[in-house]
Amino acid sequence: MTLRVIASGGTFDKHYDEIAGKLSFGKGHLAEVIQRSRITVPVQLEELPFLDSLEMQDADRQRILASVSRAAEKSIIIIHGTDTMRETAEVLGNAKLDKTIILTGAMIPYEIANSDALFNFGYATAVAQLLPAGVYVAMNGKVFSWDKVEKNRTAGVFQER
Amino acid sequence: MTLRVIASGGTFDKHYDEIAGKLSFGKGHLAEVIQRSRITVPVQLEELPFLDSLEMQDADRQRILASVSRAAEKSIIIIHGTDTMRETAEVLGNAKLDKTIILTGAMIPYEIANSDALFNFGYATAVAQLLPAGVYVAMNGKVFSWDKVEKNRTAGVFQER
Amino acid sequence: MTLRVIASGGTFDKHYDEIAGKLSFGKGHLAEVIQRSRITVPVQLEELPFLDSLEMQDADRQRILASVSRAAEKSIIIIHGTDTMRETAEVLGNAKLDKTIILTGAMIPYEIANSDALFNFGYATAVAQLLPAGVYVAMNGKVFSWDKVEKNRTAGVFQER
Amino acid sequence: MTLRVIASGGTFDKHYDEIAGKLSFGKGHLAEVIQRSRITVPVQLEELPFLDSLEMQDADRQRILASVSRAAEKSIIIIHGTDTMRETAEVLGNAKLDKTIILTGAMIPYEIANSDALFNFGYATAVAQLLPAGVYVAMNGKVFSWDKVEKNRTAGVFQER
Repeated sequence: MTLRVIASGGTFDKHYDEIAGKLSFGKGHLAEVIQRSRITVPVQLEELPFLDSLEMQDADRQRILASVSRAAEKSIIIIHGTDTMRETAEVLGNAKLDKTIILTGAMIPYEIANSDALFNFGYATAVAQLLPAGVYVAMNGKVFSWDKVEKNRTAGVFQER
Repeated sequence: MTLRVIASGGTFDKHYDEIAGKLSFGKGHLAEVIQRSRITVPVQLEELPFLDSLEMQDADRQRILASVSRAAEKSIIIIHGTDTMRETAEVLGNAKLDKTIILTGAMIPYEIANSDALFNFGYATAVAQLLPAGVYVAMNGKVFSWDKVEKNRTAGVFQER
Repeated sequence: MTLRVIASGGTFDKHYDEIAGKLSFGKGHLAEVIQRSRITVPVQLEELPFLDSLEMQDADRQRILASVSRAAEKSIIIIHGTDTMRETAEVLGNAKLDKTIILTGAMIPYEIANSDALFNFGYATAVAQLLPAGVYVAMNGKVFSWDKVEKNRTAGVFQER
Repeated sequence: MTLRVIASGGTFDKHYDEIAGKLSFGKGHLAEVIQRSRITVPVQLEELPFLDSLEMQDADRQRILASVSRAAEKSIIIIHGTDTMRETAEVLGNAKLDKTIILTGAMIPYEIANSDALFNFGYATAVAQLLPAGVYVAMNGKVFSWDKVEKNRTAGVFQER
C-alpha cells in the first residue's frame, strides 16, 4: 500500500532564515523526515506551495483538494498549519472522497528543539493506514473526525468540539 | 482511553556514558518523549529494568508479561530492543490477553542524530489506539502480527516472514 | 580566572513560543550552554532583560555597561543580538575599562538546527581568556576590535571596516 | 590566516552504525562542523584514518606529525580522542615545530545530544589563532601546555599535572 504525503507548509516545515532573521519557508523537510523514519512502504511526496495556514485562501484549499482527488493512493497525509487545519479538513470532508485523508502538523517546527513534528508524522502514518476512508485530523496523539475538531489556541492543543 | 507505556531498554533508550565512553543505560528518555509528543490522552509510564534485548532472558520476558497482564489499560506500548523483539512478542502473543499490545523500538537511539525513535513512538501510539486486541510489532512504518515478523539484520529493517 | 557571561538576548537566546507561533524570549539557554561546554573554570552567569538587538535603546546599552563596570571578573562575554552588536561594543569601547570584554551572538538561535551559537560561545570563551584588556566582537571564527567591525547584512557575516 | 583542521577520529567524530548497533566511524563530521560554524577565514580540512585514540600506535602518531610538519598553515587544530591526546601532544611537542598546534576532541560525540564537540572546536579555533607557536591541549574551556596536562578519567575532565 503506497502512502502519499502532501506538504503544504505550516509550522511543521518552517525554516529559520538567518539573513532575514525570522522563520519562513525554504527547502522542505519532508524528504528528510521520510528517510529518517525508515518507512519501508512506498511513499510518494508531493510539495505544494508552502504557506502559513493563516494566509491560506480558498484557492489554496482547492489546490490541496485537487491534489488529493487526482492521487492514485488511498492513504494520504497532508502536512498543514495548525491554525486553519480544521477549515481545510472541512473542504476535504465535504468532497466525500473514497480515501483515508489525514491532516497533521506541528506546534514546534521540525528543525527546532523539542518539536512534536516527527511524533505527529509517525502517528499520522499509522492512522492513514488503519482507518477507513474519511477525513481526519491527527494531533496530540489523538485522531479527530474532520467535523468534530477545533484548535484550542490558548492551550495550544486540538480537542473535540 | 488511557495508554500504558512500558520501557524495557533497547536501542531507543540507550544513553552515552561519557566517563565509560560507550552507550549504556541511564535515566530513561520516555518521560521526555511523552511530554514532547504533547499527547492529551492520559499516559501511564512504567519503567522496567533497562536491558539490551540481546541480553534478555526468559525471566525478563516473564516480567514484561506480568506487567502487561496486571495493567488496567487496554492499550499498551512496549519500548524494546529490536534484536529480540520478536521473541518477546511471541511470549506475549501466546498469553492471548484481551489487550492491544504494541512492541516498538528504534534503530538509532533517541538521543542520537537522525533517530527514528520519535517517529516509531508516534506510529505505535496510533496503532495501540486503533487496532483490536492482539500483539503487534510496529517498526519501519508498518505493523506486523507477532507471529509473522522477523528482523532482517543485514538490511536493518523488519519484514514479514 | 573566573569568567563572567552576561546574557542580553539576541538571536542566540531566542525561543520558539508555540502558543504565539513565533520566536521570542523565554527562559535563557546560557545555563545549559555553560554546563554542556563542561568548562572547569568558574563561570558567573548574569541575565539582563532579554532584547532583540534592533529594539535596544541607549538605556539598555548603559545597563550593559553598568554590569560590565561593576563586575569583579576581568574576562567577560556578552551574548548580544548581531544587528546592533557594533553599537553596544562602541559604548563599551569608549568606556576604556581595564577588562577583556567579548561580544558574541549567533546567526541561528541555539535551539534551532545548524546553529552556530555553541561554536561562537566556545570561540568567545578562549578570546576572553587570551586577549589583553579591550572590547572585541567575536563572530565567524574571527575576532575584531570594537572600532573596526561591521555586520554585512546581505551576506550575514561580520567583517572589518 | 588560513587554518588547517586535521581529523584523526576520537569520540568527537564517532558515528552510530545502526546495522552493527554500536558507535564506530563513518563519514567524518568536520566538513559539516566547519560550515555550521560560519568561519570566514579559509579552512583546509585533512582527514587521516579515523581511530579510537586507545587504538593509536606510534605509527599513527607519526602520521599526524608528518601531516603537521608538511602543512603550509601556521595554525593547526587536531581533532583527537581524549584518552591518548596527551601522548600525541608529546610527540608533537618534542618536534619543536614553528606552528601553533591545538589538540581538541569531545567527551560526547558531535552527533549525540548534549555534545561538547562544537564548543571545543570553537574554543580551539580561537586558541589556534591567538597563541604563539607551541603545542597545546584545549578542553573544558581551558588551554594546557602539552607537557603539563593529564586527563582525569574518573571525573572526565582535563587538568594540569
